[in-house]
Amino acid sequence: MIYDLIIIGAGPAGLTASIYASRYKIKHVIVGEIPGGLISQAHNVCNFPTYKEISGFELMEKMKNHVEALGGQIMSMEKISQIKKDNVIFQLKTESGKTLESKTVLLATGTKYRKLNLADETRLLGRGVAYCATCDAMFFKDKIVAVVGGGNSAMTAALYLSEIVQKVYLIVRGDKLKGEMIWADNILVNKKIEVLFGTNVLKLNGENKLESIELDKEFAGNKTLVLDGFFIEIGTEADTTLADMLGVKLDRGYIVVDSRQKTNIDGLWSAGDITTGSGLFRQVITACSEGAVATYDIFSYLQKKKEGN
Amino acid sequence: MIYDLIIIGAGPAGLTASIYASRYKIKHVIVGEIPGGLISQAHNVCNFPTYKEISGFELMEKMKNHVEALGGQIMSMEKISQIKKDNVIFQLKTESGKTLESKTVLLATGTKYRKLNLADETRLLGRGVAYCATCDAMFFKDKIVAVVGGGNSAMTAALYLSEIVQKVYLIVRGDKLKGEMIWADNILVNKKIEVLFGTNVLKLNGENKLESIELDKEFAGNKTLVLDGFFIEIGTEADTTLADMLGVKLDRGYIVVDSRQKTNIDGLWSAGDITTGSGLFRQVITACSEGAVATYDIFSYLQKKKEGN
Repeated sequence: MIYDLIIIGAGPAGLTASIYASRYKIKHVIVGEIPGGLISQAHNVCNFPTYKEISGFELMEKMKNHVEALGGQIMSMEKISQIKKDNVIFQLKTESGKTLESKTVLLATGTKYRKLNLADETRLLGRGVAYCATCDAMFFKDKIVAVVGGGNSAMTAALYLSEIVQKVYLIVRGDKLKGEMIWADNILVNKKIEVLFGTNVLKLNGENKLESIELDKEFAGNKTLVLDGFFIEIGTEADTTLADMLGVKLDRGYIVVDSRQKTNIDGLWSAGDITTGSGLFRQVITACSEGAVATYDIFSYLQKKKEGN
Repeated sequence: MIYDLIIIGAGPAGLTASIYASRYKIKHVIVGEIPGGLISQAHNVCNFPTYKEISGFELMEKMKNHVEALGGQIMSMEKISQIKKDNVIFQLKTESGKTLESKTVLLATGTKYRKLNLADETRLLGRGVAYCATCDAMFFKDKIVAVVGGGNSAMTAALYLSEIVQKVYLIVRGDKLKGEMIWADNILVNKKIEVLFGTNVLKLNGENKLESIELDKEFAGNKTLVLDGFFIEIGTEADTTLADMLGVKLDRGYIVVDSRQKTNIDGLWSAGDITTGSGLFRQVITACSEGAVATYDIFSYLQKKKEGN
């Protein structure tokens, strides 16, 4: 069977694309490594219109239910490992060995956590080092942790951690917090959070688990900070492995799309955090919108192909 | 008092802009003629992610509640009648005579119903002639009505009317229905709906109220169709009166915006159905996204101005 559309990625962009695809009766499937995408790990989403406050998990559950109510199928926990275009048909292989074929493809694989690239970062991952406060905060109940970063991810991580741990050090490279002012204000009045501005982390110490970190600047008379947990919250970056296999045009690591989310490859669209769309503003609402816009254009494309036969 | 931002329009774009503005602590107000915008009159919204089925009214109530929970203020039932830019400040006047000043403006006034421009269309409006099935269907319980149009607005209007009236004629200029296939399929199997393809309406008849319409083609041996109600559902168009006062660049009647929703006028952004954004795909989800993208850029603009002082 040849699909009309394969959506790669099951986050806000991919799921919204499926909602529109179902309504346009486009024969499609979603292949998503993380059902719900990275946002499903967010502690709190406060800016998706109509929801004053909702967990990322619950928001994405609602979106998945919407997709499934319309008949959209999600192949979850599957990863596309190979993609090529053979004349007019895209041929895809999953890690588990499945083969899929489609007339069009929507790449909506989003982004992954950015690493600090310290010597022992990977070795100590899961042993005190973490990338997702929402996922791992509970392991550090009443403990001392640090968060690295100065943007929205770091601020919301610090605020969330402060509800659970004993003490949070927020380590910021620059001299101010960047992002939503409301978070910054909350950080500065929070008694459990101490902000260390103009500070970099040089080294992680610990044999079987993280014990302390080395700073490039003294704090309370010491460059060593004793810690139980260390959260790296310096944002995300796109994984463009599949895009590279097809020769997709990138700009600074993100997929270049036009106003209809079309890439430079005929039959290939892209939506969500992985693209240069929406003025580079990467939000749930912009990802959803890009998924809808892409699907509308895919519908027109398929219609024209049909008439051409 | 000079606002940081005045949002003109209280539909999905304007309300989402306010949600983001509140979180960025931008001092702003929304001035909206129709609270909730035109979508609040939609019978059924089925493609706003996370809601399988919701009335336009309920969806926009939720969005207004979200805005107000964050402290956003809506001046509803107010219309901006004048706008000019005096050096760096925008000066606005409302129809009721209020004066407002702001550093930036977001134009998000959406679209209004397109007219058929028949001789007696305005005279018979509210006397059998209507533009909004959701608003007026109940006046035609068990009666005979016609809907003009072949797109999504017309199809959803016909389907909704079929739940209430005795009989619906769907009058389509072309030879097929355009828009979401799911609506078209539902139309064609609906026993209360009869589709007249390749047909135009030439004239409305009736003294104090609509009595019949004249077609350019015979139907059941007659060019006159006896009716109680006549719904004009041929889409919408943008009202660019305010944009024209400022010399905003338009394309085919819509405001030209860049990828950050900026217009050609410094300090002026635009979002939602009134713009050329989102690849011309005009949906609730795309309007929301445009409102968010605009506000993010307005935030950066205001920050830079602040640093410049």
